[in-house]
Amino acid sequence: MSTDKAARRARFEGAWKVIKQELLDYITGEGMPKDAIEWYERNLDYNVPGGKLNRGMSVVDTAEIIKGTPLTDDEYLKAAVLGWGIELLQAFFLVSDDMMDSSITRRGQPCWYRIPKVGQIAINDSFMLEAAIYYLLKKHFRGESYYVDVLELFLETTFQTEMGQLIDLITAPEDEVDLSKFSLKKHSLIVIYKTAYYSFYLPVALAMYMSHVPQSYSSENQTIEPYALAKSILIPLGEYFQIQDDFLDFSGTPEQIGKIGTDILDNKCSWCVNTALAVCTPEQRRVLDENYGRKDSECERRVKEVFESPEVDLRKRYGVYEEKVYGELVAMIGEIPEVDVEGKSTLKREVFKSFLDKIYKRTK
Amino acid sequence: MSTDKAARRARFEGAWKVIKQELLDYITGEGMPKDAIEWYERNLDYNVPGGKLNRGMSVVDTAEIIKGTPLTDDEYLKAAVLGWGIELLQAFFLVSDDMMDSSITRRGQPCWYRIPKVGQIAINDSFMLEAAIYYLLKKHFRGESYYVDVLELFLETTFQTEMGQLIDLITAPEDEVDLSKFSLKKHSLIVIYKTAYYSFYLPVALAMYMSHVPQSYSSENQTIEPYALAKSILIPLGEYFQIQDDFLDFSGTPEQIGKIGTDILDNKCSWCVNTALAVCTPEQRRVLDENYGRKDSECERRVKEVFESPEVDLRKRYGVYEEKVYGELVAMIGEIPEVDVEGKSTLKREVFKSFLDKIYKRTK
Repeated sequence: MSTDKAARRARFEGAWKVIKQELLDYITGEGMPKDAIEWYERNLDYNVPGGKLNRGMSVVDTAEIIKGTPLTDDEYLKAAVLGWGIELLQAFFLVSDDMMDSSITRRGQPCWYRIPKVGQIAINDSFMLEAAIYYLLKKHFRGESYYVDVLELFLETTFQTEMGQLIDLITAPEDEVDLSKFSLKKHSLIVIYKTAYYSFYLPVALAMYMSHVPQSYSSENQTIEPYALAKSILIPLGEYFQIQDDFLDFSGTPEQIGKIGTDILDNKCSWCVNTALAVCTPEQRRVLDENYGRKDSECERRVKEVFESPEVDLRKRYGVYEEKVYGELVAMIGEIPEVDVEGKSTLKREVFKSFLDKIYKRTK
Repeated sequence: MSTDKAARRARFEGAWKVIKQELLDYITGEGMPKDAIEWYERNLDYNVPGGKLNRGMSVVDTAEIIKGTPLTDDEYLKAAVLGWGIELLQAFFLVSDDMMDSSITRRGQPCWYRIPKVGQIAINDSFMLEAAIYYLLKKHFRGESYYVDVLELFLETTFQTEMGQLIDLITAPEDEVDLSKFSLKKHSLIVIYKTAYYSFYLPVALAMYMSHVPQSYSSENQTIEPYALAKSILIPLGEYFQIQDDFLDFSGTPEQIGKIGTDILDNKCSWCVNTALAVCTPEQRRVLDENYGRKDSECERRVKEVFESPEVDLRKRYGVYEEKVYGELVAMIGEIPEVDVEGKSTLKREVFKSFLDKIYKRTK
């Protein structure tokens, strides 16, 4: 990690200390007993700050790009509260997803529900991670003109992510393989709802609200709706990110991606299997039906053989996909009008470029 | 049930049809696949409308009492949306509580998570019951001056209920009896947070917002804060309701209460055991320590013997408690200033009287 990146992370983590204390002070003030306060602190410590923090920090980064000059301390804290709100939202999803998927580890440690004495209480703990968001928003944004927009955006994004999770759960249950439920269209829907909205559109839109980007403005001869415009770029960008993630699960070495891919064993509705299903021969289809999603390394090997076959050739198809989507995103970003009729700067291309640069051709 | 009560229920249930369709139309419009829409409909049908609907209908009743004349159709629908919001919130809690408590049945049918194919997906299903509230609030209240108050009230009440659930879960785990964690003070805290806020304060406060009751008004020589005043009555009222519920679990016959009480077997942090702990002899304390919360009818019998003993005599103590709290509540209600300085009617005593009358000396 570069020094700059480490310093940015350290500053963002510093804000977490403040935010966590605000939450503990709140429940202490409500008269909660000592053991409940300690429990909540452990829940927060264990589940919120240990990830890559990309989503949370991108609120701060985006706010800074829009402003064009460094944020004041007050602006930084505001952006960090929104960023940690996304991290809390993600923690809420991950704690509960791990229970629904019967996962074993998360971020290199046992999943929270597997900690002794936690168990099913983890369900309520996940709720209390979500509830924290709205306490923090009220505390830090109650007086802002965009408060209700931010509230609604968090709430709507939560619903969208839950819809994505539902489609994923009923399309690809771990214990019942049925590839006829899969399709590239279904994959796209799952990815957009389950990942793209909260990971890509949410951080940018929050930074835009905080920066007082208006609902619409005039630029030359057109009326721009900057939130809809941002969404039209960030949703395909998020889809690209997840397709890349799916592809790396298949193609990446453990040294590259820091874990062993298990999507084939776990019956995941991945871009890889959906692409294979769309182009494979009837004979290969039979191989996939009989071997996908079985907890067996020989079955996994046979599926990978189909993925590598000349008919399917996922590596080539991924390369073609990546070049195409990259070109489309570059073109869309290049068309963003950056100033309004009065020459006042509004949306910046750099916001989207910085996301795209972090993703394009990444190998981990 | 009286004809009037049946008709009121039927009208409230009629509003559910409209509301449910709005939710299905929303997720259909978002492009959800057919099987996901059907799943959500089943989730809504199974978990939301089958209860007593007291909490939801009390929003409508309260709005009508405050207005003093029948609600228009538009006002009725608004009150019903708020009421069904509480029922959705309760469904969110019940679906997840049943998983955390490993419950078997709810409202005379298997708990949702025990339905084939549902299982752990019930966690995400509970989330989607909660998310529905905020979609409905936006759809029906976006333009109202009190929209943000209603949003915040739902969100804050959710957090409070989750705090209550946490204290309850760590104080009275089903599989680890430790009566030293119990106390009447702990009981009061659990009851207020887990039940009273969402069941008593929330419906009345929502109806007050909808009826444009202001944050404060002047009456004679005092400044009244009607929401704080309502809370100061409804929280003890909710506590009284739950203490009565706890007492009926012990004393009510199955014919009366429509179920067999299992609080002693289930290690519940009930008013009964907490009162017994506060007044029993050291010898009786040993009996409670050794027999409370064991899944054994002989142990249960020994605990009941302590509850009925002359030293503890729960029946008498409950009678004394009920008369005392009833008198206090009547006195508090009698002191509510019903008109402001201009003689305009504001809070009505009848709002609180109608709650109290439904509870006092009920036997089921």
